[in-house]
Amino acid sequence: MRVIYLDNAASTWPKPPEVKERMAEAIENFAANPGRGGHALAMKASKAVFRTRVELARLFGIQNPNDLFFYMNATQALNQAIKGLLQEGDHVVTSSIEHNSVRRPLEYMARTKNVEITYVEPREDQLYDPEDFEKAMKPNTRLVAVSHASNLTGVILPIAQIGEIAKKFQALFLVDASQTAGVLPIHVQEMKIDMLAFPGHKGLYGPQGTGGLYVQPDVDLEPLIHGGTGSQSEAIEQPTTRPDRYESGTVNTAGLAGLHAGVSFVLEKGVDHIHAHEWKLTKQTLAGLHQIEGVEVYGPGIEVERVGVISFNIAGADAAEVSFILDQQYGIATRAGYHCTPLGHRTAGTEQRGAVRASYGVYNTEQDVEALLNAVREIASAFQSS
Amino acid sequence: MRVIYLDNAASTWPKPPEVKERMAEAIENFAANPGRGGHALAMKASKAVFRTRVELARLFGIQNPNDLFFYMNATQALNQAIKGLLQEGDHVVTSSIEHNSVRRPLEYMARTKNVEITYVEPREDQLYDPEDFEKAMKPNTRLVAVSHASNLTGVILPIAQIGEIAKKFQALFLVDASQTAGVLPIHVQEMKIDMLAFPGHKGLYGPQGTGGLYVQPDVDLEPLIHGGTGSQSEAIEQPTTRPDRYESGTVNTAGLAGLHAGVSFVLEKGVDHIHAHEWKLTKQTLAGLHQIEGVEVYGPGIEVERVGVISFNIAGADAAEVSFILDQQYGIATRAGYHCTPLGHRTAGTEQRGAVRASYGVYNTEQDVEALLNAVREIASAFQSS
Repeated sequence: MRVIYLDNAASTWPKPPEVKERMAEAIENFAANPGRGGHALAMKASKAVFRTRVELARLFGIQNPNDLFFYMNATQALNQAIKGLLQEGDHVVTSSIEHNSVRRPLEYMARTKNVEITYVEPREDQLYDPEDFEKAMKPNTRLVAVSHASNLTGVILPIAQIGEIAKKFQALFLVDASQTAGVLPIHVQEMKIDMLAFPGHKGLYGPQGTGGLYVQPDVDLEPLIHGGTGSQSEAIEQPTTRPDRYESGTVNTAGLAGLHAGVSFVLEKGVDHIHAHEWKLTKQTLAGLHQIEGVEVYGPGIEVERVGVISFNIAGADAAEVSFILDQQYGIATRAGYHCTPLGHRTAGTEQRGAVRASYGVYNTEQDVEALLNAVREIASAFQSS
Repeated sequence: MRVIYLDNAASTWPKPPEVKERMAEAIENFAANPGRGGHALAMKASKAVFRTRVELARLFGIQNPNDLFFYMNATQALNQAIKGLLQEGDHVVTSSIEHNSVRRPLEYMARTKNVEITYVEPREDQLYDPEDFEKAMKPNTRLVAVSHASNLTGVILPIAQIGEIAKKFQALFLVDASQTAGVLPIHVQEMKIDMLAFPGHKGLYGPQGTGGLYVQPDVDLEPLIHGGTGSQSEAIEQPTTRPDRYESGTVNTAGLAGLHAGVSFVLEKGVDHIHAHEWKLTKQTLAGLHQIEGVEVYGPGIEVERVGVISFNIAGADAAEVSFILDQQYGIATRAGYHCTPLGHRTAGTEQRGAVRASYGVYNTEQDVEALLNAVREIASAFQSS
C-alpha cells in the first residue's frame, strides 16, 4: 500500500532527492570539522556550512549570513532566543496558540526569573487582532514572541503588524517560523523581526537535526551553550564574533549540506507557489470535511486562508483511534494528540480530547485529499451507525 | 594526491560505508518524526533512534537505554550536565587539561552562580595523580568533571580511581569522553560514572550533528532545553519521563541511524583492538619525532600509553605554517592552533604558540606515520638551514 503522508507539519516527507545526495557527498568527501583546522577537508566542510547560511539569508532577507546560527532544531533556537535575552522582571507578550517550544521556555523564565507573561487570545472568529497585542504591551515589555502560524489550526498571525507594535514599544520581536519557513514569505527587515527561529526539516525540506536562529546584529544574547568555538580559544568567555559566539561544538555538517539542497529546492519552486498549492489542498479538505456529518473542524471559518494544517475530530470517536484507523486501514499518515500545543487546544476548545491533524507538503496532491475525505467519510459513517 | 587524514581527534574520517547508507535509508524511508505520532513512518523513526540508544548502552555498560539522551554534540551534552546540576555556591573539581566545552560552562557558572572551581594540575611527569584530586575535594564539592583523555597530548586520566574519590566524598562524577568513546573501554557502572558526555562523530564513527549524555537514574537535572516532547504535552513543566525530559524538539533521526552503524562498527572491531592499533601508530610517531632535530613533542614521556593524539612544534617555525605546508605540499591533514584547550596548552607549556596536532583513527596505517615523519623531517631541515 502506498503511504499517503499527511504529517508534514511534524516533518516534511518525502525530501527532494538532492537532500540525501548532498548528505552522502558530505559524509564521503568532507567529514572533517568546519572551522576547526585549515586543511583542505575542513575547508570543504566550512564552505558547505557557509553556503547553507548564505542560501537561508537569501530566503529570509538577512543581510549578513553570519547573523544566522545553526542548532539541532527550532526548539533549541527558541531556547537560545528566550533564555539568552530575558532578565529578572521582564515582561513578555505572546499568543495563546504557542507551541510548547515557546511556552515552556517562557514558563521556565517565569518560574526562575520572575518573568511575567501575557498570553494574547484570539477574537471570536479565532483570528488574532494586532490591537490586542498593543493593549498587552507594558513599559517593561522586553519581548514579543509569537508563532507565525499555528501547528494545530494553521491560522496565520499578522506578524508584520505585530512587529510594528513591538518596535513602537521598543520591545524585541521573536518569530517562531516552525510552520511557515519555506511556506509563507518572511523578510526579517521588512517585518521588523529581531529574532527568527526555524526548523530545517519542515517547510525547508532539509533533514531532521537542523534548525537555526537569526538574531539582528544589535542584539547580544547570553549564549545558551558555552564551549569550544575554534576562535579566540584562549579566552575564558565565549568569543564575540558571530556566528562562533552562538555555535559552540561541532555543527551538523552533513545535515546542513542536505538543508542547502532543501532551501535551494524551495527557492526554485518559490514560496508563493508552494503556499498556493498547500492552500488549494487545504481549502479542498476544509470544504470536504464540512460536508461530512459528525466531523468537527477546528480553527477559523473555512474561507480564511491559512497554512496547510487541519485539525478535526469525528463525533463519538477517539482522535488516536481515528488516526490509527487512517494509518492501518487506509495507509494515510496523520497525527493524533496534543501536538505539543495545549495552549492551542485550549484556544480551539479541544483540550479534553486532542484532535486528528492532517498537514500538507509540496508533494501532496488533490488525490491525497480525496483519499483522506473518502476515508473520513467511511470512518464517520461507521461510528455514527455504531 | 591522496589525502593522509590525521585530524581524527576533531572528526574521524573516512566513515565506514554503512554510515552513509543508513543515513540515506533514513531520509528515504522514515523521515517522519520519532515519538511524534503513531503512524508507520514515525514508528520506523522511533525504532531507529531507540536502536541507537540500545547499541550505545551496550558499549558503555548502561543498564537502561532511556538514561541516555541525544544532543547535537558533546558540547551540548556537557552544558546540560554542568548547567543542569550546579547550584549557587557549589564547588567543582576539574583538571588542567579540560577542553573549552568543560571549562567555559564551568566558568559561566562561576560568573553567574558563584560556583567555585579547582583545577587539578598534573605531576612533573605530566600525568595526573588521583591523590591530587582527593586533596582538592571539599565539603561542598558537588561535582568532579574530567576529560577521560586530553585532546592535545593524548594523556589518559585515571578515571576509575577519580570516580572512587568522587563517590567517597559524595560528589557526582562527570566524564567527558570526547577523545575516548570508542577508543578506550568505558563502563559507567564499574567506573562509577554518574554522567558521561560523548560525541558521535569522533571515535564512534558516526556523522557530525550527533552526541549524547548518560545520566544515572537517581540524578535529576534542570533541562537545558525546554519545549515539546511528544509526551505530557498538557503540562507547563517538562515531563519527568526519560529520555523525553531532556530531549525537547525533534532529534537528528538520520544522523542517529548513521551513528548506529558507527557504533556497530566499533563493537565489531572491538574497542581494545582499535586502541591497540592507534597506540602502535602513536608510539611509532613519538619515537620518530624524537629523533628529528628541532622537533619538540608535548605531553608525558614517549613510553606512556595514551590515545592517538600527538602535538608538536618545529623550532623556528610557526605551527600554522607547518600545518599548512603539511596540507599543501604533502597532502597530510593535521591541525594547528589551540585546539580549544588553552588550559591544556598552559599545562603543556605551549600557550604562547599553540602546536601542530596529528591524530589517528582506525583507518590510518604505518605508511601514514612514515609519510608524516618524512614530511616533518624535510620541513624541520628546511627551517634549520634557513
